[in-house]
Formats: sequence, structure tokens, C-alpha cells
Amino acid sequence: MDLTEIRIQPPRGGEVLVRIAASGVCGSDLKALDGHSPVARQPPLVLGHESAGVVAEVGPGVTSVRPGDHVIIAMNGPCGRCRNCSRGRVHLCSGRARLNAITGLMGDGTTRLTVDGVPARPMIGIGSFAEYAVVGEAACVKVRAEAPLDLLALTACAVVTGVGAVLNTARVEAGASVLVVGCGGVGLNVVQGSVLAGATTIIAADVVPAKLTLAEEFGATHTILATEDLPAQVGEIVRGGTDYAFDVTGDIAAIAQAFAATQPGGTTVMVGSPPAGRPLSIPPQALFASRRLMGTQGGDAVPRRDLPLLADLHRRGRLNLESLVSERVPLDKINDAVDHVRSGAVARSVIVFD
Amino acid sequence: MDLTEIRIQPPRGGEVLVRIAASGVCGSDLKALDGHSPVARQPPLVLGHESAGVVAEVGPGVTSVRPGDHVIIAMNGPCGRCRNCSRGRVHLCSGRARLNAITGLMGDGTTRLTVDGVPARPMIGIGSFAEYAVVGEAACVKVRAEAPLDLLALTACAVVTGVGAVLNTARVEAGASVLVVGCGGVGLNVVQGSVLAGATTIIAADVVPAKLTLAEEFGATHTILATEDLPAQVGEIVRGGTDYAFDVTGDIAAIAQAFAATQPGGTTVMVGSPPAGRPLSIPPQALFASRRLMGTQGGDAVPRRDLPLLADLHRRGRLNLESLVSERVPLDKINDAVDHVRSGAVARSVIVFD
Repeated sequence: MDLTEIRIQPPRGGEVLVRIAASGVCGSDLKALDGHSPVARQPPLVLGHESAGVVAEVGPGVTSVRPGDHVIIAMNGPCGRCRNCSRGRVHLCSGRARLNAITGLMGDGTTRLTVDGVPARPMIGIGSFAEYAVVGEAACVKVRAEAPLDLLALTACAVVTGVGAVLNTARVEAGASVLVVGCGGVGLNVVQGSVLAGATTIIAADVVPAKLTLAEEFGATHTILATEDLPAQVGEIVRGGTDYAFDVTGDIAAIAQAFAATQPGGTTVMVGSPPAGRPLSIPPQALFASRRLMGTQGGDAVPRRDLPLLADLHRRGRLNLESLVSERVPLDKINDAVDHVRSGAVARSVIVFD
Repeated sequence: MDLTEIRIQPPRGGEVLVRIAASGVCGSDLKALDGHSPVARQPPLVLGHESAGVVAEVGPGVTSVRPGDHVIIAMNGPCGRCRNCSRGRVHLCSGRARLNAITGLMGDGTTRLTVDGVPARPMIGIGSFAEYAVVGEAACVKVRAEAPLDLLALTACAVVTGVGAVLNTARVEAGASVLVVGCGGVGLNVVQGSVLAGATTIIAADVVPAKLTLAEEFGATHTILATEDLPAQVGEIVRGGTDYAFDVTGDIAAIAQAFAATQPGGTTVMVGSPPAGRPLSIPPQALFASRRLMGTQGGDAVPRRDLPLLADLHRRGRLNLESLVSERVPLDKINDAVDHVRSGAVARSVIVFD
């Protein structure tokens, strides 16, 4: 990733200029960096999408925020008008937000960014590895001025994806048993989302022992090293398998193992993005026994409902954001942060701006 | 199938002797007949499980029915005490009913039936291709004396499986689009279940044109011949795919096609029992886009809630049972009925007793 000067145009109608306060480094940024992402096809690209900041300027027609407001920048600011938005499935918005997510362009198909005169596209229409970003009004979720933006930045992606997969997608109920495969930044939030839902058996699985220790800090009641037969190990903790399993690795073999570790009637949620091109093979008789297999789009979040809830839970001491942050680094050290995330040594590196 | 004399013992504690009035011939009976069913492993076996009748005698401790009561015999009379029953998932009862379904034996591990002195097992603990059956009290669901038992017999399996898959498993909502692949006895009930749920686009698919005509009678708004590319044909009716797809064939290729015909966020329900041993291959990226794939156990029914509801809907003219019955035959013509079901020429053959 190169550090360079970006020219940014003022916000147009329905747009907001945000001075970024903090931006987490997520696996999706790395995927885009490595060219394994549809958004990466036409550089220059401004990465970063898990962020919070302070409104600097609003474009014409913007009514829900004004300069000085502290905001979390939601990954998908829903259009509010398409069929999916209209029936409450805003995570499946097929309007403006959807287009942004794929092309990185604003609602009108253009970009506010240029690098040396060349139009540059912000990742998912955000591009928060920069001091300023222009985003759609719907992506701006206002929070209290005293809230810690470096921590709340994480709610925009890792936290809402993990907690949302539990509360919105699977709808885990009190007393349930849960298996979480992969305990990175998102997986740890599946663990604490399960605590919030009242799950009483929370099994964390990973190949890295240090991540299991962290998972216990977030509320895992059991940990297993995922190097050996997962369903067998789970079966020794919950006879017959768990009620819920979450794969947060995106690995095809891990998804199949997670599924095999559920009991009849159990639900498996694919939280991690699987590779394209390789099929997922499942024994159909196991599915037939009332099991369920489902995907989630970033925790199926409704940004204006879920992000303020997460901020509130954090304020009340019920959501641990502090332990997610392994390091805070300035923007000019971003490539070090990327290396740390790539090595799997950290939960989350956060880029903080002055 | 041989017609022979069965000796039946009186009901023991918690058991009920029912004089069978009618019993539908279901694909599961044929599977057992052909030896493709776990219940068929130790003959002699008394087939038949989709039935209704009149209580003839009750064993000690039975309080919910008495002689003369008209009852539908539920496929799985839940134990009411196991963990799944306790949390309302009675279709996943792991107690007595579950054992009956697999072994065909009563709760105490014995059978009330003998053929020439040899113990005989009733299918799913019912065995309704006989004038009398001894079943657990929990399987007896009382209905009005004036209700037509030859029609209500069908609610016990085909109707509750199809309608239940829509209302209980998928929870289809008003205004939704639905695809039904396979329009036999169960598939037609997925169609009319979708009407009950308020679905406004109901696409019926089958390889037999006559079944599509029948599906229209049950409320299908569109029909397609499933011999050609299913997702493409569906896409011409609902751009982007349907909200829900139900596979009622149990065929692996058909399940994959049904899944491919859903839009992002769509739900696919496997209603037909798939073969063991062959894996189901699904593109994981399609699942990741918030799609859902789920099995159903006979419509995930709660017998004492759902069977009286179905009887009531029929009485009010909102559930078509009449058109499901292709023929009524006496028990001594059962092998003809089996041939008719096997040929796919009929929706349902019903064995009626004097």
C-alpha cells in the first residue's frame, strides 16, 4: 500500500464529508490489497472501511447529521427505497449501497477522489485509510460526542458482523450451545454476541492457542484446538452436537466441519467469506434432519438500529471493544499493521488519526 | 405386499387401540416396501402411517381420548419431556416418538402385533394398512365426530408436511414468491400452504404436465415444465429469483436447481427425503449471500396444534383435501393402489375401511 496525497472534492447532494478518527484493518482490506476482491479491479483504490469520525461538511439535502457530529460509518448505508429495504432486509439493499459495495463509486456513479488527477475509488464507497472520506448520508450513524471513536470504529465491521450473525442471522436464544470456528476479530465478536444472546455453552475453536485464550476473555466457556477432528471434540462437550455453529474462517473444510458438529435441528452460519469456484459438499440427509445452513452479509445489520445498540452496550460495559484492539498505529505505519494482521498475531490493528 | 391376518394385543399403559377408517398410500410406504428405509430391515412389517380412525379402546392412564372419539393419528406423537419437546421443537423429539419412528416399536420396546406368532413391527409405530392399530396416546389428535376421516387421514402426512414446510419451517410471508419443485401429494400441499401464507407468486414445477394442471387448481400462479433449465425459467417470472424454493423430489440435482433459483436472501427447503451417500454440492458464495438451505422433518409439525388447524381450515373451505384424493380403494386392492402411486399417475390413493 502506498501513502500518497489524495484530492477530495466537496460532498454533493446527499453526501457527507467525514474527518476520519480511526479505521480498523480488516481481512477484507488485505483481500482487496492482494487483488482477491471485485473492488480491487481498477486501481487507484483507497482502502479502509471500518471507521468512525467527525462530520466536517454536509452536501445539499443532508438532514440527519451536521458538522461536528460524531459518527460511525456503516458499511452499507441502505437506500431505504428498494424492495429489500422496504421489507426490512436492508442488508440486501439492491439500491445505491449495493452498487457502492461493488464498484466503490458514489450513488451517481462518480468518485470524489483523485490521485495525481486520476479518479480513485474508495473501498465499499468509504476508503477510510485517509484523513477524510465522502460517504452517503445513510452510512453516517450518529453517536454521543464523548464516545471513543477509536473503539467504535470496530463496530462498523468486525463487531456488527460477529454480533449480528448471532442476533440477526441465527437468532441464538438463551440456553443454547454455540460453536465458533475461527477466533480472529470477527470470531471473538461471535463469542461475545453469543454471551449477549444468553448462550450457556460457547465453544471456541482455532488453530492458534493464543486466540483461544482471548476467546475465553470474551466469554467462551470451552476451547478446542481445531487441528483435530472438530465434531468429535464438540461431541464430548455437547452430546449430539451444538445448537449453533459459526464458521468465521471461510475455509470450505472448516464450514463442513462446523456443520457436522451441529445436532439435528441445528443451525450453521457462514460468517467468513468462502472462496469462489470451489463447491461446498454437504451430506443431504444431515440437512434433511431439520438442520439449517445460512450465509450472513456482515451480520445482516440494520445500521441505524444495530450500531447505536452496540455503542450503548459498550457504554454499559456489556460489550468488550477494548480487548479487540491489539495495537493503535498512525497512518504512516499502515503497512506494519497490515503485516501484523496478515500474520494472525493480532485481533485488530487500528489506524488512528490525530 | 401380502394381505394376512394380524393378531393385535390390547393397548397397554399410555396406548390407544384405534379402528382405522382411512389410510393414505405415501411414497415412504413404497420406500419401506422396496427395502430403502431403516424401518424395513426386520420383517414382518405392517406398513401405513397416514391415517385417521375411531378410538376403540384405551389403555391404563390414557386421559385425552376415550372410545368413540374420532382421531387423526399423528406421525410423531411427541414425548413432551425431552429437551427438544420442552423448548417447542416437538418435531425433533428425541424421546419415545423418535424411537418409534426408527424401530417401529412401542415406547416400551415391544410390539402389540404378531403374524403367525412372529412379532411384527408397525411402520413408525403406526401400521395403518390394517383395520386396527395400537398407537401412543400422544399420536391421537381428536377431531369433530362429523369431520370426514377419509380426507383428514391425509393431513397426518402429506398435508402437514407440505403446509408445515411453508408455515413452520420456512415461515413464508405475505407477498413472497415461491417455487415448488415436484407437485405430487406433498408438493400440492406446499402450493396450498403458500396460498395460506399469502404468497402472491407461486411457481409450480414438475416433469409431468398433468401435475402442473393440478397445481393450478391448488393455487399455483405459474407453472413450468422442469425438463429444462429451472433457474432460467424462474428468472423470467421473478427477476433475480424467488424468495423461497421447496424441493419435494428429494433428487440431488433438483435440490441444487431449486437453490440456484432463489435470490440473495432466499430460502430453500428440502421437503423430499434425499438419498443417503450422495453429497449435495452447493456454491458457497451463493450461500454466503444470505441464502438459506434447510431441511424439514415432516413440516416440523406440532401435531396437537397443526392437525386441528388443518381440519379447521378444511371445514372453512380454505384447505382443499378433496382434490388430493385420486382414488378410494378397499384394503384388498392395496397393491393396485401401490402401483398407481408408483407410476406417478395419482396425487393420493386412499385405503378406506368399512
